[in-house]
Amino acid sequence: MNRKELEAQIKAKQSVLCVGLDTDLERIPKHLLELDDPIFEFNKAIIDATHSYTIAYKPNLAFYEAEGLAGWKSLEKTIAYLNENYPEIFTIADAKRGDIGNTGRRYAKAFFETLKFDSVTIAPYMGSDSVKPFLGFEGKWAILLALTSNPGGSDFQLQSLEKGHKLYQEVLAQSSQWASDEELMYVVGATKAEFIKEIRQQVPNHFLLVPGVGAQGGTVADVMEHGKAQNGVGLLINSSRGIIYASSESDFAGAAAESASKLQSEMMKFI
Amino acid sequence: MNRKELEAQIKAKQSVLCVGLDTDLERIPKHLLELDDPIFEFNKAIIDATHSYTIAYKPNLAFYEAEGLAGWKSLEKTIAYLNENYPEIFTIADAKRGDIGNTGRRYAKAFFETLKFDSVTIAPYMGSDSVKPFLGFEGKWAILLALTSNPGGSDFQLQSLEKGHKLYQEVLAQSSQWASDEELMYVVGATKAEFIKEIRQQVPNHFLLVPGVGAQGGTVADVMEHGKAQNGVGLLINSSRGIIYASSESDFAGAAAESASKLQSEMMKFI
Repeated sequence: MNRKELEAQIKAKQSVLCVGLDTDLERIPKHLLELDDPIFEFNKAIIDATHSYTIAYKPNLAFYEAEGLAGWKSLEKTIAYLNENYPEIFTIADAKRGDIGNTGRRYAKAFFETLKFDSVTIAPYMGSDSVKPFLGFEGKWAILLALTSNPGGSDFQLQSLEKGHKLYQEVLAQSSQWASDEELMYVVGATKAEFIKEIRQQVPNHFLLVPGVGAQGGTVADVMEHGKAQNGVGLLINSSRGIIYASSESDFAGAAAESASKLQSEMMKFI
Repeated sequence: MNRKELEAQIKAKQSVLCVGLDTDLERIPKHLLELDDPIFEFNKAIIDATHSYTIAYKPNLAFYEAEGLAGWKSLEKTIAYLNENYPEIFTIADAKRGDIGNTGRRYAKAFFETLKFDSVTIAPYMGSDSVKPFLGFEGKWAILLALTSNPGGSDFQLQSLEKGHKLYQEVLAQSSQWASDEELMYVVGATKAEFIKEIRQQVPNHFLLVPGVGAQGGTVADVMEHGKAQNGVGLLINSSRGIIYASSESDFAGAAAESASKLQSEMMKFI
C-alpha cells in the first residue's frame, strides 16, 4: 500500500487507529479454546468488529511464535484473511527484525512475499545494511524503531552522543537518508509525548507508528496535537490490549468495537 | 545447558566451532529438492556429518521464516533432531529478537519452551526490559548483540557517547550488570578482531559468540589469541556458508565435514 492510499484511508475513516493483535491463548475468551484455531477465530472476530474504525492491524509476532507451528499457521491465516477481505487495510508485522544484508533479505521475503504484509518493524542496532534489505519493494514499508515506550527504552536510545544529540536522533538522522517517507516509517512511543514534537521537527514528513496509547499510558490528543506530519496526517496510533481485551467474555468483539470506536472519535477531532 | 557442560564439551572435542544453519533452498544441492522436507534433510545430513567437530548449531531464523509454514516446520524438526540425537550440543536460535517485557516473555517461551533451544540471540536497542525476559531460565542463555561484523555495524554501535566510550561498550557495561556469565553471552564480530582484545578486558568472563569467520573474513587464530575468557575458553566461533555450502553437489555433507574438521584443527591449537 503506498502513502497516497494510506492517507486516503485515514481521511475516509477519520481515524489513525492501528489495532495490535497481541493474541494470547491465556487471555482470549475461554469458549474460543474449543475451536480448531482459537487464535485465528479471535483475530477474525476482532477484525470483523473493528475494521470500520481501523486503518492498520499489527500482529505481534512473539505471540504467534510462542505457539510454535500452530501459531505460525494462525498468523498466516490472519494475514490472508485481512488481505482477502479488507485489502484497504494496512498490515504491519510487528517483528522487530534486523540482521545483515544476506539474512535481512530473507526476512523481507518472509514478511513481504511469503506472508504478504505491507510493512515490518525493524530494529536499528545493526545499521544501514540491516534496514536496506526491506527497502525498494513497491508499496511495502520498513518501520524502524526510533524511541520506544518501554522503561528500558531510555537505557541506550537516550544516551547522549559526543556529537551533541541522542542515539535515537542519530538513528533518525542517518536512516532518513536511506529512504524517503514513501517507504520508511518510525516507531515512536506515546509515553514520551514530550519527544514527539521534537521528533516531528527532525523528520517532518515520515509516518510515525505510535504505540503506548492505552495500557502503556499516553493520550491520543497529545500525540495528534504534536505528531502530525507536514505533508499529511502521517500518524498511526496503536492500541493492543485496550481494544482486543476490552472484555474477556463472549461479548469481546462488541467490546473491542466499542473501544475502537471511542478512540476513533477522539482521533477524528484532529484529522 | 549450563556453562560447565559447555566448557566440558569444548575440552572434549577440542573445538569452539558453531555451525550456522543458514539453509537456503536456492543453495542446497538440487537432488534434495525432490524430498518432502529438503531443508530438514539438508540440516540432518550436515549435522550428522559435522557433529563431532561442532560445539553448537545455530539455525538462522530468517531462512526458515522465508519459507513460511513449511520453513517453521523444518526448524522444529531440526531442533528436535538435535535435542534427541545430540543432547550434548549447544543450540542457538539466531533470531535477534528484542521487545518489551510482555512481548519478550513470549519470545522466550517460543525459543526456550516451545522449540527448546538452549539460547537465543537478542538485539539491545530496547534496553534492559527487552533482555531480562530471557534470563532466569535454568540452563538457558541470552546472547546479546554487542559489536556485529557487518559494514553497517559501525553506523550506531561505534558512535562515541558523551560519557567517553562507544555505544557497544555501553551495551556491555550495562548488560553485564543484568546477568552473570552463566546466562548471558555476547555477539562480537570477527571482522573487528582489533576490538576483541579490548572487549575481553571489559567482559573477561562472558562467552563470546563470534561470527564473521570464513565468508565474512576474520581468522580463527586472531579470535582465539585475543578472545579467550579468564575463566575458561569462553568462545564460540561461527561459520555458516563456509561449511554448509562447501560443496553444492551430492558430496555436500562430506565437504562440510572436511571444512568443519579443518576449522577444528586450527581451534585445537589454542584450547
